[in-house]
Amino acid sequence: MSLSRPLALPPGVSESTFHQFIERITKTTPDVTIVESKDQFPDGGYHEPPSSHDPFYVQDKDHFIASAFVCPRSVDEVQDIVRAAGDFVIPLWPTSLGRNLGYGGAAPRVRGSVVLNLGKHMNRILEVNVEGAYALVEPGVTFEALHNYLVEHNLRDKLWLDVPDLGGGSVLGNTLERGVGYTPYGDHFMMHSGMEVVLANGELLRTGMGALPAPKSETEGVTKLHEEPGNKCWQLFPYGFGPYNDGLFSQSNLGIVTKLGLGLMPNPGGYQSYLITIPGEEDLHKAVEIIRPLRLNNVIQNVPTLRYVLLDAGMMGHKSDYTSSTSPIDEATTDAIAKKLNLGRWNFYGALYGPPEIRTAMWKLIHAAFSAIPGARFFFPDDVADPRAVLHNRHNVLQGIPSYEELRWVDWVPNGAHVAFSPISRISGADAARQVDLAKRRCRDAGFDYMGTFTVGMREMHHIVEIVFDRTDAGQRKRAEALVRGLVDECAALGWGEYRTHLAFMDQIAGTYGWGGGALGRFNERVKEALDPKGILAPGKSGVWGSRFGELKGKL
Amino acid sequence: MSLSRPLALPPGVSESTFHQFIERITKTTPDVTIVESKDQFPDGGYHEPPSSHDPFYVQDKDHFIASAFVCPRSVDEVQDIVRAAGDFVIPLWPTSLGRNLGYGGAAPRVRGSVVLNLGKHMNRILEVNVEGAYALVEPGVTFEALHNYLVEHNLRDKLWLDVPDLGGGSVLGNTLERGVGYTPYGDHFMMHSGMEVVLANGELLRTGMGALPAPKSETEGVTKLHEEPGNKCWQLFPYGFGPYNDGLFSQSNLGIVTKLGLGLMPNPGGYQSYLITIPGEEDLHKAVEIIRPLRLNNVIQNVPTLRYVLLDAGMMGHKSDYTSSTSPIDEATTDAIAKKLNLGRWNFYGALYGPPEIRTAMWKLIHAAFSAIPGARFFFPDDVADPRAVLHNRHNVLQGIPSYEELRWVDWVPNGAHVAFSPISRISGADAARQVDLAKRRCRDAGFDYMGTFTVGMREMHHIVEIVFDRTDAGQRKRAEALVRGLVDECAALGWGEYRTHLAFMDQIAGTYGWGGGALGRFNERVKEALDPKGILAPGKSGVWGSRFGELKGKL
Repeated sequence: MSLSRPLALPPGVSESTFHQFIERITKTTPDVTIVESKDQFPDGGYHEPPSSHDPFYVQDKDHFIASAFVCPRSVDEVQDIVRAAGDFVIPLWPTSLGRNLGYGGAAPRVRGSVVLNLGKHMNRILEVNVEGAYALVEPGVTFEALHNYLVEHNLRDKLWLDVPDLGGGSVLGNTLERGVGYTPYGDHFMMHSGMEVVLANGELLRTGMGALPAPKSETEGVTKLHEEPGNKCWQLFPYGFGPYNDGLFSQSNLGIVTKLGLGLMPNPGGYQSYLITIPGEEDLHKAVEIIRPLRLNNVIQNVPTLRYVLLDAGMMGHKSDYTSSTSPIDEATTDAIAKKLNLGRWNFYGALYGPPEIRTAMWKLIHAAFSAIPGARFFFPDDVADPRAVLHNRHNVLQGIPSYEELRWVDWVPNGAHVAFSPISRISGADAARQVDLAKRRCRDAGFDYMGTFTVGMREMHHIVEIVFDRTDAGQRKRAEALVRGLVDECAALGWGEYRTHLAFMDQIAGTYGWGGGALGRFNERVKEALDPKGILAPGKSGVWGSRFGELKGKL
Repeated sequence: MSLSRPLALPPGVSESTFHQFIERITKTTPDVTIVESKDQFPDGGYHEPPSSHDPFYVQDKDHFIASAFVCPRSVDEVQDIVRAAGDFVIPLWPTSLGRNLGYGGAAPRVRGSVVLNLGKHMNRILEVNVEGAYALVEPGVTFEALHNYLVEHNLRDKLWLDVPDLGGGSVLGNTLERGVGYTPYGDHFMMHSGMEVVLANGELLRTGMGALPAPKSETEGVTKLHEEPGNKCWQLFPYGFGPYNDGLFSQSNLGIVTKLGLGLMPNPGGYQSYLITIPGEEDLHKAVEIIRPLRLNNVIQNVPTLRYVLLDAGMMGHKSDYTSSTSPIDEATTDAIAKKLNLGRWNFYGALYGPPEIRTAMWKLIHAAFSAIPGARFFFPDDVADPRAVLHNRHNVLQGIPSYEELRWVDWVPNGAHVAFSPISRISGADAARQVDLAKRRCRDAGFDYMGTFTVGMREMHHIVEIVFDRTDAGQRKRAEALVRGLVDECAALGWGEYRTHLAFMDQIAGTYGWGGGALGRFNERVKEALDPKGILAPGKSGVWGSRFGELKGKL
């Protein structure tokens, strides 16, 4: 067997060891690809991100790049690969589909790691349970696939799936990254129940009620005592008995999740999406103060978004459609764009769920509250003629119909890519205004447009600042990276920490969570060392390294 | 200093080492009591459970008993005690208030452990935040105290607290044990956000956003940029960044939680409790099938309970008030009791939340659905004259007003005590009927009355079977213990596992969660060993031991 030479090897691993590892895993898992050059694969768009690197690289294209990627077909094969990685001490980077866009795609934190693409072949919907309103899925099941399953089985009148902005991502992967959607079931991690996990030693774990073996069947000598014997609680009750371990496997490198249960939302019996336009930049403060009590009281029933006009403008055209300048868009032009698109500076997208009398009652309260903002306007999809309008897209997303439109704003600039800066804050007008003021000034200083959105959970907001840059322009990439680095530190000093980040910023952000002299980091490292002493699972993920690669911490 | 001789020492610890440890901790924490005899303290009722043992012992009174208990006054003192325990290798058993009634009270799993009573002195409500709707509490804050705080500060019109059946327990302790309450915020663990934890090495950890240091104040050189600087997200966003560790500290022995954040429920703007009586034993199947879709669709908005008539009878009198027999109550007598109390065989207690139009809409649906059960009757509190009626108590509990009445049924028999058997199942008529049939037959065979209740979460039911026995009767204790042991195994074989248990059954139940050749147990032991290599924190809790006391596993 003659093996090609990888572009990058894992640190401290010889080419010979690497090849022995590849030969070993290829015996059981033939779908292995060695990454020989940074240009071996198309740069990727949304539908086909390469399994080996970040389609939206903010450093050099081959900075975070795999040595190879392997696509197992079964949990057994995953276990085999992990055992081989242990034997040859090869770092793996597990991904579901690699569509963690804006946060690194499929690329590994440690250059030369072997990407484990779980989702290419392991993409079965194992169960959709109507009575219990849940699904059990493998890593490769996309939001679109699960939604389509509901449609094809005529289950949409019973069950809805919560979907994030883009329908092509992995349900399992998004949930583990603690991604959000926009229905009342928007907190995917909260709505999950049960995991199956391959540990670094190759053992297989089931969490929660999954640790209770299925009852013996009648033929095994136990009388069949109820209609459907079987432990049907794995996807119904998340906690099980004893320590509740699931959180350990989110945003982490402590195990490889091969199955995940997720609650599905009962069809609410009625739906109405809406848009409220907030005219002035300075109205943000007031709008957020209006949103907080409505959301907390579940009058706003879903996870709504408050989007800056330029993000919506990016959904409806390129920057060049609005201005001939390549400088950050100024206030007057922003006003002109808002006017042209019939939008406000801020645009609030929400939805009402339930039978007409419920929706009417909620809308009355929401309408009255927002009417306190002079010039606020209210739209249902029928009121908006332009088919490109964001409301039409949100109309789908907020009822769990997957969409692929959200990334249109990546083409705001030529060869567009994006990186997200995503701090958490309380739902407070002062915090929102201050964050926007800061982010906008810093974006402008770096030569970028501020394109932000607030995603409002029950008690907090995710502020997602999308920084869109030309990935072929090294200067822009450098400025984008420096911009995020600056914002991370500046915001941390003000009490705002990120909920999720790109590979390039993981160590920095983990460092901001440094209370008690870095107690959390030390704790995470201790658990890492116990569960993965050889450091083979995703070293560096979320700033947790393990001793083997510890010297790389803080380095790029 | 002359020290008295403890009734029990920890295994392998000499009296001299024990006394050195006591002397060391007494220097900083003077509130230390050595347990010299099993009768040193009153047997305890609800209000004053002893800090050293189980008021409702199911083995001998001194079987699960502490050598001493210590009541620190601060987190510093907790850290000192933990470090001393490490130095002298003394097992500690942390409790909040020791009111884990039916599950062991304050008693340690390992006889002779030193109970750490955190709540006696550390009982401050650190924050009640109205805008964010949360509280931050120390271990000694009871549900009653937190509720009273809301009342005294005229906050009940804004915020409600979810309370469990008894108001005297610790908010923090109940949440860590994954206890439930009965409002829409009934899943306390789900509603928590943020912990502070003393680790076995004495280090202090803050989880989630608590790991982000508070921003520097103006005087420290950073300009004050928003109205209220400070990271206010610790109680708003549970996950933080990286692995989400909180679950590790629930039902576990991996750390000592010294602060906990909990979401409070916005006052819903209206409330109506109700009772639906279900006449026949066999109607249980139908009732549960009716409940499932209503609960899943949030028409039943809270965590309701479906109670067997004898549990309610126990709230309204002693067994001797209903029958002169001490044998298990037969069907005819059960019917007579139901008739006398104007109840059904099963009694469903729920509540409606919101303004009148919402409540009316929900009630219409609930009333119509339950009307499918012939003879079902519907009551609001105003319809029930008897002040002892359970509905009047539930009326308080379901709106978060603490109560102390639930334990009345412990006096069903003289010298009453109770132990709970608590399996989880899906919300299914078949599962409910089968569990009751089995539990009832086994209770009867053991000489006890079946006194059960189903607590209905969103997708599963906790079936709580309360076994009430005369604690002064060794034969009854033995039979109660054997009854639970039998039920655990029999139910596990049918796919039903327990969510929580008494000290005496922890190893057995942990053993039933044995999927994959005991993968979960091995995982838990690995984490335990990494975080507490000396085995000083609550060895044996939830069946997790660590290597030091590993030989005690499975032994009583």
